[in-house]
Amino acid sequence: MSSSLIATAHRLADAARIETLRLFRSPELHPDNKAGHGFDPVTEADRSSERAMRAILAAERPHDAILGEEFGSSPGSSGLTWVLDPIDGTRAFMAGAPSWGVLIGVVGADGPIYGIVDQPHLDERFEGGLGRAALTGRNQNWPLRSRVGVSLSQATLMSTYPEVGTPDEQAAFQRVAARARLTRYGLDCYAYALLAAGHVDLVIEAGLQAYDVAAPIAVVQAAGGIVTDWTGGPAHHGGRIIAAGSPELHAEALELLA
Amino acid sequence: MSSSLIATAHRLADAARIETLRLFRSPELHPDNKAGHGFDPVTEADRSSERAMRAILAAERPHDAILGEEFGSSPGSSGLTWVLDPIDGTRAFMAGAPSWGVLIGVVGADGPIYGIVDQPHLDERFEGGLGRAALTGRNQNWPLRSRVGVSLSQATLMSTYPEVGTPDEQAAFQRVAARARLTRYGLDCYAYALLAAGHVDLVIEAGLQAYDVAAPIAVVQAAGGIVTDWTGGPAHHGGRIIAAGSPELHAEALELLA
Repeated sequence: MSSSLIATAHRLADAARIETLRLFRSPELHPDNKAGHGFDPVTEADRSSERAMRAILAAERPHDAILGEEFGSSPGSSGLTWVLDPIDGTRAFMAGAPSWGVLIGVVGADGPIYGIVDQPHLDERFEGGLGRAALTGRNQNWPLRSRVGVSLSQATLMSTYPEVGTPDEQAAFQRVAARARLTRYGLDCYAYALLAAGHVDLVIEAGLQAYDVAAPIAVVQAAGGIVTDWTGGPAHHGGRIIAAGSPELHAEALELLA
Repeated sequence: MSSSLIATAHRLADAARIETLRLFRSPELHPDNKAGHGFDPVTEADRSSERAMRAILAAERPHDAILGEEFGSSPGSSGLTWVLDPIDGTRAFMAGAPSWGVLIGVVGADGPIYGIVDQPHLDERFEGGLGRAALTGRNQNWPLRSRVGVSLSQATLMSTYPEVGTPDEQAAFQRVAARARLTRYGLDCYAYALLAAGHVDLVIEAGLQAYDVAAPIAVVQAAGGIVTDWTGGPAHHGGRIIAAGSPELHAEALELLA
């Protein structure tokens, strides 16, 4: 059953690639405004990407539930939920930057069991769970393994925005950033992928949704990393997230966030 | 003569690709510390990339001057200077993020006349000047054309670090950011490339060196954009830089920076 689940997940990612790459960097790309105020672009690519993935699930996994960013929840009876973000990082997508990704997570009773973080423009697919932990694409295949033995003073920290969340959340983030070797911004889900691949040591964010984190959690955990909320509890419902390459580094950063 | 200059520039970029990709995302990548304090990584890839480019110039353009980030100035008699940054964005390089680039600029008496911004991992080469303005790679070839008709309230603004420079410089930057539609960080030279390709409208930075800007200036200008310092003067010596997709947007942002 897990091999069929994995095959379905890859078909979803393949379908989402077609829909997203059709519009990435295209002059046809016209944002509209989901929130009615501020800037929260929803592109046609976003919607068509999720539609394509839902069509495959309807055919191949009719008893699984779905939670998608664009079209919400669909119930299921299998105990598994497909958690889909058709374009994580729509702002990067709009700016032509290849740090957005398609997120496909499979969540069971205890949290994510499998996930794909796909970057179509780079042809890089990060996959983790059900015995897999690999980066595939560009005709190659590399194992994913997070970096260990790195203390906070040697660590590279990432977050998507310098305004991490509320003022309190930002202050907590800055306590960690002040001790880290290097802090970088702007990579969306690709930051978790780089952590799983051993290039980055910490990702700390706040205000995330469940569909932002399910797939990254599965990939990072499969690579040996650890992902929790800022109190050390389960992270897959979203909110305040910390991902670390090793339990020791996770503990060191968590103490500063508290 | 310009066709031979262009051919040489591409040979430099090809040579730098080999040297940089050999170490990008490699476990062999060990930073050392150029400044003696803080974090300013110089990688072996950085040095070997510049060495490879200088060897080609010594053979093919012995009368041109060279200014390189790693090995400084070499005099010439032709009136042309090759301005080389073998890895712009070494911190991105260290973090495995594909926003670093190899910068190759050719500067005459009045400023940059030709430049390449190369992203080896993406196989994307942005080229501008001497009649060219193109993105090549991935077996394709697109013209570069900056986006016009975008006011500041509709614009996407980029800068590498949220701490743009001094407190005064940061305040000036924030006056522009407060009016822009979207501000993103973390893309190094790739932000200028995205501006030339029409995906981003403004790049504003401070504290840059001549080797950071020569190639981006040539590429952005060839695509129809404008690059100056924050007073509207020449930008190719570095310092405070503003690049805009159109003269109108440039003027609108410049007024807020003043």
